[in-house]
Amino acid sequence: MEKVFRDPVHDYITVTHPVIAALIDTAEFQRLRRIKQLGTSSFTFHGAEHTRFSHCLGVYHIAKRITDYFSLNFPLEWNPDENLLTQCAALLHDVGHGAYSHTFEGLFGTDHEAVTREIITSPQTEVNAILRQVSADFPEKVASVISHEYPNPQVVQLISSQIDADRMDYLLRDAYFTGAVYGKFDLTWILRVIVPTENGIAFKYSGMHAVEDYIVSRYQMYMQVYFHASSRSMEVLLQKLLARAKALYKKYPEYFAMSSPCLVPFFREEHRLEDYLRLDDGVMNTYFQIWMTHEDPILADLARAYVNRHLLKSIKFNRDTVSLDDLSILTQLVEEAGYDPDYYTGVHSNYDLPYDFYRPSSQKPRTEIKILQKDGALTELSVLSPLIKSLTGTIHGNSRFYFPKEMMENPEFTKHIQNDTFFDKEERDESSKL
Amino acid sequence: MEKVFRDPVHDYITVTHPVIAALIDTAEFQRLRRIKQLGTSSFTFHGAEHTRFSHCLGVYHIAKRITDYFSLNFPLEWNPDENLLTQCAALLHDVGHGAYSHTFEGLFGTDHEAVTREIITSPQTEVNAILRQVSADFPEKVASVISHEYPNPQVVQLISSQIDADRMDYLLRDAYFTGAVYGKFDLTWILRVIVPTENGIAFKYSGMHAVEDYIVSRYQMYMQVYFHASSRSMEVLLQKLLARAKALYKKYPEYFAMSSPCLVPFFREEHRLEDYLRLDDGVMNTYFQIWMTHEDPILADLARAYVNRHLLKSIKFNRDTVSLDDLSILTQLVEEAGYDPDYYTGVHSNYDLPYDFYRPSSQKPRTEIKILQKDGALTELSVLSPLIKSLTGTIHGNSRFYFPKEMMENPEFTKHIQNDTFFDKEERDESSKL
Amino acid sequence: MEKVFRDPVHDYITVTHPVIAALIDTAEFQRLRRIKQLGTSSFTFHGAEHTRFSHCLGVYHIAKRITDYFSLNFPLEWNPDENLLTQCAALLHDVGHGAYSHTFEGLFGTDHEAVTREIITSPQTEVNAILRQVSADFPEKVASVISHEYPNPQVVQLISSQIDADRMDYLLRDAYFTGAVYGKFDLTWILRVIVPTENGIAFKYSGMHAVEDYIVSRYQMYMQVYFHASSRSMEVLLQKLLARAKALYKKYPEYFAMSSPCLVPFFREEHRLEDYLRLDDGVMNTYFQIWMTHEDPILADLARAYVNRHLLKSIKFNRDTVSLDDLSILTQLVEEAGYDPDYYTGVHSNYDLPYDFYRPSSQKPRTEIKILQKDGALTELSVLSPLIKSLTGTIHGNSRFYFPKEMMENPEFTKHIQNDTFFDKEERDESSKL
Amino acid sequence: MEKVFRDPVHDYITVTHPVIAALIDTAEFQRLRRIKQLGTSSFTFHGAEHTRFSHCLGVYHIAKRITDYFSLNFPLEWNPDENLLTQCAALLHDVGHGAYSHTFEGLFGTDHEAVTREIITSPQTEVNAILRQVSADFPEKVASVISHEYPNPQVVQLISSQIDADRMDYLLRDAYFTGAVYGKFDLTWILRVIVPTENGIAFKYSGMHAVEDYIVSRYQMYMQVYFHASSRSMEVLLQKLLARAKALYKKYPEYFAMSSPCLVPFFREEHRLEDYLRLDDGVMNTYFQIWMTHEDPILADLARAYVNRHLLKSIKFNRDTVSLDDLSILTQLVEEAGYDPDYYTGVHSNYDLPYDFYRPSSQKPRTEIKILQKDGALTELSVLSPLIKSLTGTIHGNSRFYFPKEMMENPEFTKHIQNDTFFDKEERDESSKL
Repeated sequence: MEKVFRDPVHDYITVTHPVIAALIDTAEFQRLRRIKQLGTSSFTFHGAEHTRFSHCLGVYHIAKRITDYFSLNFPLEWNPDENLLTQCAALLHDVGHGAYSHTFEGLFGTDHEAVTREIITSPQTEVNAILRQVSADFPEKVASVISHEYPNPQVVQLISSQIDADRMDYLLRDAYFTGAVYGKFDLTWILRVIVPTENGIAFKYSGMHAVEDYIVSRYQMYMQVYFHASSRSMEVLLQKLLARAKALYKKYPEYFAMSSPCLVPFFREEHRLEDYLRLDDGVMNTYFQIWMTHEDPILADLARAYVNRHLLKSIKFNRDTVSLDDLSILTQLVEEAGYDPDYYTGVHSNYDLPYDFYRPSSQKPRTEIKILQKDGALTELSVLSPLIKSLTGTIHGNSRFYFPKEMMENPEFTKHIQNDTFFDKEERDESSKL
Repeated sequence: MEKVFRDPVHDYITVTHPVIAALIDTAEFQRLRRIKQLGTSSFTFHGAEHTRFSHCLGVYHIAKRITDYFSLNFPLEWNPDENLLTQCAALLHDVGHGAYSHTFEGLFGTDHEAVTREIITSPQTEVNAILRQVSADFPEKVASVISHEYPNPQVVQLISSQIDADRMDYLLRDAYFTGAVYGKFDLTWILRVIVPTENGIAFKYSGMHAVEDYIVSRYQMYMQVYFHASSRSMEVLLQKLLARAKALYKKYPEYFAMSSPCLVPFFREEHRLEDYLRLDDGVMNTYFQIWMTHEDPILADLARAYVNRHLLKSIKFNRDTVSLDDLSILTQLVEEAGYDPDYYTGVHSNYDLPYDFYRPSSQKPRTEIKILQKDGALTELSVLSPLIKSLTGTIHGNSRFYFPKEMMENPEFTKHIQNDTFFDKEERDESSKL
Repeated sequence: MEKVFRDPVHDYITVTHPVIAALIDTAEFQRLRRIKQLGTSSFTFHGAEHTRFSHCLGVYHIAKRITDYFSLNFPLEWNPDENLLTQCAALLHDVGHGAYSHTFEGLFGTDHEAVTREIITSPQTEVNAILRQVSADFPEKVASVISHEYPNPQVVQLISSQIDADRMDYLLRDAYFTGAVYGKFDLTWILRVIVPTENGIAFKYSGMHAVEDYIVSRYQMYMQVYFHASSRSMEVLLQKLLARAKALYKKYPEYFAMSSPCLVPFFREEHRLEDYLRLDDGVMNTYFQIWMTHEDPILADLARAYVNRHLLKSIKFNRDTVSLDDLSILTQLVEEAGYDPDYYTGVHSNYDLPYDFYRPSSQKPRTEIKILQKDGALTELSVLSPLIKSLTGTIHGNSRFYFPKEMMENPEFTKHIQNDTFFDKEERDESSKL
Repeated sequence: MEKVFRDPVHDYITVTHPVIAALIDTAEFQRLRRIKQLGTSSFTFHGAEHTRFSHCLGVYHIAKRITDYFSLNFPLEWNPDENLLTQCAALLHDVGHGAYSHTFEGLFGTDHEAVTREIITSPQTEVNAILRQVSADFPEKVASVISHEYPNPQVVQLISSQIDADRMDYLLRDAYFTGAVYGKFDLTWILRVIVPTENGIAFKYSGMHAVEDYIVSRYQMYMQVYFHASSRSMEVLLQKLLARAKALYKKYPEYFAMSSPCLVPFFREEHRLEDYLRLDDGVMNTYFQIWMTHEDPILADLARAYVNRHLLKSIKFNRDTVSLDDLSILTQLVEEAGYDPDYYTGVHSNYDLPYDFYRPSSQKPRTEIKILQKDGALTELSVLSPLIKSLTGTIHGNSRFYFPKEMMENPEFTKHIQNDTFFDKEERDESSKL
């Protein structure tokens, strides 16, 4: 029986295959309802409370549209037996994400991609039980698509490439919920010009401008939304708060066992899958609220700052010309003002490579976007598009130094700032170009 | 200094007055980020994760637009000294809402309106401290607007009437985040035709159709979104789960003190404001996840059902012709199937009166919507609009009986159901009209 | 080869069948590019310049979506051999519309429905030549669908009933181009719940509220857009202008033969199809611009008024209590002011019956909207929906009296007006209810 | 009294100043209702029937928003006495546009900018009469703003620069009516960050990404909409048709005097303003329909082709490497097929420079976009934005060769085509880069 989800981005998302319906109903997938898609961004964009649950449904939906379209229109180039596999991989590609994954992984050594694989392949999970009903090796196949190891590059590229179902959904979805106008692009047209080729997927020449627009939208979303200074301020706070708790664990093991039991396995660096699955945004926030009254003044203060959104201030700096040593002038002033600089200052860098062609010598060579010309030739996108050429291979973003906002009242401190940017003598001429 | 919020519904929300900016930064107001606007509806409409924080900002925004407009265009009819009061009341009208308020209040005797008043008037809160800076009696004035006791009916009606800033925001916002197409109406036009009158507010005749459309949109949102059977299924589950926990508290006081400390004051019926403010959606969900492994099978099962979204099934029944006694046929079958009917069956009724004119004899007489004609006459809306006349004074909604979905496999049970509706012999002829 | 049209309402409209592609390329269909969908409404809503060409494409698109969906999902209830017929009828249902059809028909006795039939069935047209390629009787079949005579009521109702492809497209399209917020409804959902039944089409119970919303949207568009007083003012001017030209034809036959040759056959009441097809909005406006300098002062003045949008003013009157005789007080004052009342006053009535059930005794009984319940019962919409019940069988709209705006400076004239409504002593008490 | 226009792009456009209201009611401004904004583009994008009337209203609206905002927020930098002037210039900047201006100007030596000036400054027009009521030199001032000669660069740049009220409106409007997704950008934000400076206007750094997005949207609209091959095909047809008529005028002076009197002054190269104002899209199309039956087979055939949209086919060619001589291979084949190549082949080039900084040595140096930094420095946009840097100073577009579509069946002809592009030996390697 068909199930329908009302989705603000895709209107209606339809589930017809019983395996997909059963996967959505698993505890592991329902858990994604309790994890925000954009982490701390909702502190900046109050509409962005949407969850990984909705994003995963959206990726499934796009994958379904493409595989249905391929099955109908490309009987020679596409094998419809791949449909369910592609759709399952799309639905589950983020199932291992945890609360505030990026910050958490940095501190506790977890890896959401490894967890995704484990949820899919471990015989203990509900997800695995359902996938096994398809065939004994189906869980492994789904996992291999997500890890790029599946032999059919068409399936892999639909899930993970520079223009895939994942990115297409998150751009549209994050734009919708943040209210940004930038993330829009012509999904309908892209889904009309996508074609399966021998070595993956390509886009007909008539859709090149829609692909261009997608790349530019992606760039704009990174610059304007994902790299927003306030969201990163909250990330820095969160990182400092968790670091403080971890550092205090040895001193207060009983306190943490009582107040925040689900974090203990991570403090002790001996967590298992079931521990990981117990954590979600609500659980973490519950702990932070308890910590607000702890006797350690730093833990309590950081917890209050995070819970009540007391932002750290920040300035940009040029990472090519400014070393951490150079920033120590500021760090020292923060310390003199009575703050522990380990917990009240921080550097946060955000950079993105909007698009690149395939560079075999690169560590992580990118799957380039191919444009299919009328005579059958496949041409790499940046060769045809001067707009994309300009974004190709160049990294965009910035590095920021965070500190207590009280410092902005200290002229010794602010004299190093111009146009929200750190500078010293050498910097002066260049600062406007950051 | 001006602050700007990117809002998907109103585009940009601008805060210029420092009192408003300071109120938004209080712990009590930031807490609203952790409480969903629509409670269990996000289990049905996965986009509807938006919070009371965003709604309250939106109500403030509409109130600001109206008071700015009144100040500029109606110097005789409107006193600009009311602007800040109106905007504060708009911002704070829901500040006392708690996690899953409606369900919670039924069980624990809390009252979010009383809490709102307390947060505003209690000298312990950050909100109160800021309001007091305006003037000593300002907190009391803000509270009196929200409780309809403020002497100027213009201000009261802008915050609370059948067409007020609150409702205008939530209809648009809930429509946006659920993805429903129904909640849209022409806010811009309504804000052009609104006028302050001697006894409140009115709408110019040229805007009557926009007001009509607002009423119909509201009706549609109630029928289609707010009264959705699946969201109510989750509400029933939640109500049963909390009831079970409360019932078990005396037996397991230490367990609850350890696992769910913030609920204990409510189990003991001796909570204070600070206890109330500690509860939010994340805290509640954290407790429910702990309860999933409790030794009481009912508590554990209900907790798992809620956390993993295992819905109860439901049927409609006609409350005018079907008594709870009549439903006992079903309840008994549920019991025979091994379920405790106190926890596995439930009745959920949702009714709304889309619009009514002023009925002095009514318990809660409504402030009717007035249309201002060219000659200055004020005419009640339903007199002019046949469409609204049809919705006036009539209650819409339904009553549902909830039960475990396994019952649908029992023919003794399903023989009482036709078109999702309970019926017995007497009902048969009427059932299609429910 | 597939053709794609970028459509602001439906995103992309795809044409795959060569017969449809060829029909679009005919001279008769391309002519619809030169006829505005909403006639004089663009003088009020400046965005509403959209043409019958775009509407007809849109109706085709909806019909194609429905017939494709029926073919895939209802193999027993729907015969896919009807697909092309339904789509052709959808595309061509308005092909006989001419410039300002309604006004024109009143004056010259033309009938756009008869012309539609003639274009389809006359062997002289390009449209007919293409339809004949399908089969000899295909033109006749297409025409019979449009005239409701085709034996299969499913096909007839998809093209013409109280909820058909025609109305669904024009509501959405007219809302989009006027900028009205009212015409929106959930087309996607309606197209999911539509089902073919033995005697026509029906809608699943789960879509009832979407159908309700469609009916209310339609009502709102009539009240707010189609019946707008200014658009009707231009219609009155147009009607008077053409009437004057017709009346002058005998006196100035050569002038009209030279200046406005394509209208002569209509003045002489001896037009053929080819004459009709020569007229379009641009041709008519070209003639009006020439007439602006004619020696007859009334013709020239009305032409200038129409071309340069000098509106007549209007007031409402209650047609149940006010006779044309009653209005003669006003007509006489207009005459005294120096205007020929035959050309400078006019009555314009606009009424609509938003919805009705089937009334066999009615002159034009309506095909009622059927709701399909879970047990297979088909129930008429207004039985299930109190909202629709309130709109059922009641006529909405008003009658207006038009006159030169200078009259508003005459107190003898304006004393009969209150709230834009004509009244006299008897009227006084009732006037606000009009 | 305030007048309100419902506008699909800007929601409501409000007119409060009586001079603006009176200008809109003039015959010269109402005439813009009869001239499409995008000329032949509506043959490709059937929604794009919007008129210059709606665009001019939109430009006025943006100018009003900016000048109101400047008056309120920049009392030192902006003189509110410029408000009405700016708004009038915005409203009237295109009032001299005629039917199919670009094609028409090429053939008949008219100049819509000169006509705009004449309409504003000639004492014969209604527009001039109204402007003179403001002050004797007001018409001249309005004209000087439009011609960039007004001394205050703030006013000039608001109406005409690389980011002005004109472009902001047409991008949004053309996107809305064509249905393109590309033309959207964040107008609201741009109107929040715009500031008047000593030498013009600038944009705060916080709005840089919105300005970037505007530039990219503009680029996309040019590439995807304005330069569409089919619209240009219709332009070529139109140009050939008018050229043929002009060439035949000497042979058939009486025929043209009868059938198409308003074009005669242009054929005779002795037109006055009043002749120009008589032409509009409808008048031209009326003439073309008459010409369809003329005895000259080329005139009749081109007229039919234009009226019934029989497109010429086209291919791209690289204007840097392919000369017109090279194309003569094709022209000759067209001639051999029986077509007069003067009327049945044509070259159409469309190029745009998306953005440039100020180049004093350039013929038409551009007013560069300035970004205002926190410390008050004004920096040229491309210095700060790598995305814009990539578009700066480089021309985008293509050249196309048009010919009868029957040629595509001739292998001698098609062998010179690859991927819709003309090539010969030298071209072969380069062709994919065009």
